Amino acid sequence: MPAYRLHCFAQSGNAYKVALYMSCAGLEWEPVFVDYMTGATRDPAWRARVNPMGEVPVLEADGKRLTQSGAILLWLAEKTRKMAPGTEDERYEALRWILFDNHKFTSYFATYRFLRSFAPQEPDPAVMAFLKTRADGALGIVNEHLTKTPFVLGPEPTIADFSLAGYMFFPEAEHGYDFETSHRSIFTWTQRLKALPGWKDPYDLLPGERIAPRGAARA
Amino acid sequence: MPAYRLHCFAQSGNAYKVALYMSCAGLEWEPVFVDYMTGATRDPAWRARVNPMGEVPVLEADGKRLTQSGAILLWLAEKTRKMAPGTEDERYEALRWILFDNHKFTSYFATYRFLRSFAPQEPDPAVMAFLKTRADGALGIVNEHLTKTPFVLGPEPTIADFSLAGYMFFPEAEHGYDFETSHRSIFTWTQRLKALPGWKDPYDLLPGERIAPRGAARA
Repeated sequence: MPAYRLHCFAQSGNAYKVALYMSCAGLEWEPVFVDYMTGATRDPAWRARVNPMGEVPVLEADGKRLTQSGAILLWLAEKTRKMAPGTEDERYEALRWILFDNHKFTSYFATYRFLRSFAPQEPDPAVMAFLKTRADGALGIVNEHLTKTPFVLGPEPTIADFSLAGYMFFPEAEHGYDFETSHRSIFTWTQRLKALPGWKDPYDLLPGERIAPRGAARA
Repeated sequence: MPAYRLHCFAQSGNAYKVALYMSCAGLEWEPVFVDYMTGATRDPAWRARVNPMGEVPVLEADGKRLTQSGAILLWLAEKTRKMAPGTEDERYEALRWILFDNHKFTSYFATYRFLRSFAPQEPDPAVMAFLKTRADGALGIVNEHLTKTPFVLGPEPTIADFSLAGYMFFPEAEHGYDFETSHRSIFTWTQRLKALPGWKDPYDLLPGERIAPRGAARA
């Protein structure tokens, strides 16, 4: 049995952050499919059994259940030392970017993509404009940072890259951004990550069917 | 000169998280006022000089500039050992709750409060409804957790409490929640935190003038 079991589904960039890290780090893991799209994580029984925070991903490891992708990445890096921040300053810097990712970057971008493509109802245009403005602010800060460095912490990829890049590999039809045009440094950074051994597309790495994004009809 | 200088302003719950921790931990610190409300953090010169992420708080310590309240709290706890998570499991648990705070709890609640009370224009009702639904989801998860434990990690307060409680001490007129009625466990938890030596109201602890919340007129 693999050392790691990841509760996940294909549309979750937060699950993909952990899965892609494990794939590129060469760790043995297996996915456990969570049927999020039909409400599995809102079921009180699922919350009681797997995660009271109601969130995916959940990593089973060493008899524990770990949640929050950023905490899982920091835990895995500390345990395996693969693509781990080296010095104390680097560890703090990774933590800072992972928090920024959760606070400002993934939070708005991922929610924008979800409402645009997968929410049951067509979202309110004012909500979409609000989320896009916030996502654009965070994308600009990351893009600017990546003009100065090949990866988030320097010349080598670390867990900070896997956290921040988690939603960048989903198709343009889902989120509406063509990074090659709009955010050139983010685009070249994603190309560097794609070149890592073990890199896989989210829909090849994670279980669950593809869902045609509603946004595709509007694009 | 105090060992710590915190760039902050009174309306910032994220700055308050760090300031309140330092106050309760008995650390020597001084505030540096940031005139956020008139756009100081959007000024490229401020970003270049203080924080390229454009965010408050920023902590000056050991010749470094630290940002992101969660990263600062983890850094301070590791350095000072005050109200620090003890075991490795506790450290991971603190990290998980601090990430949850940034991702789901503060992010929506703080933005809801800001738009409701301090944004230049009256916010769009659809945006407010969206943020309130998300804030309520996160408040419910924290409230439920606090039915089982006096503080987030157990019987004693840690940095996880200071992170999650950062926005809970602002007046009801600003955010519209009466926690004593709506979220009883959160309310009793805030009373426990208020009883700690060093606890101060955000408007007593941080520099900057009070601003009458627009929400007060509507309440």
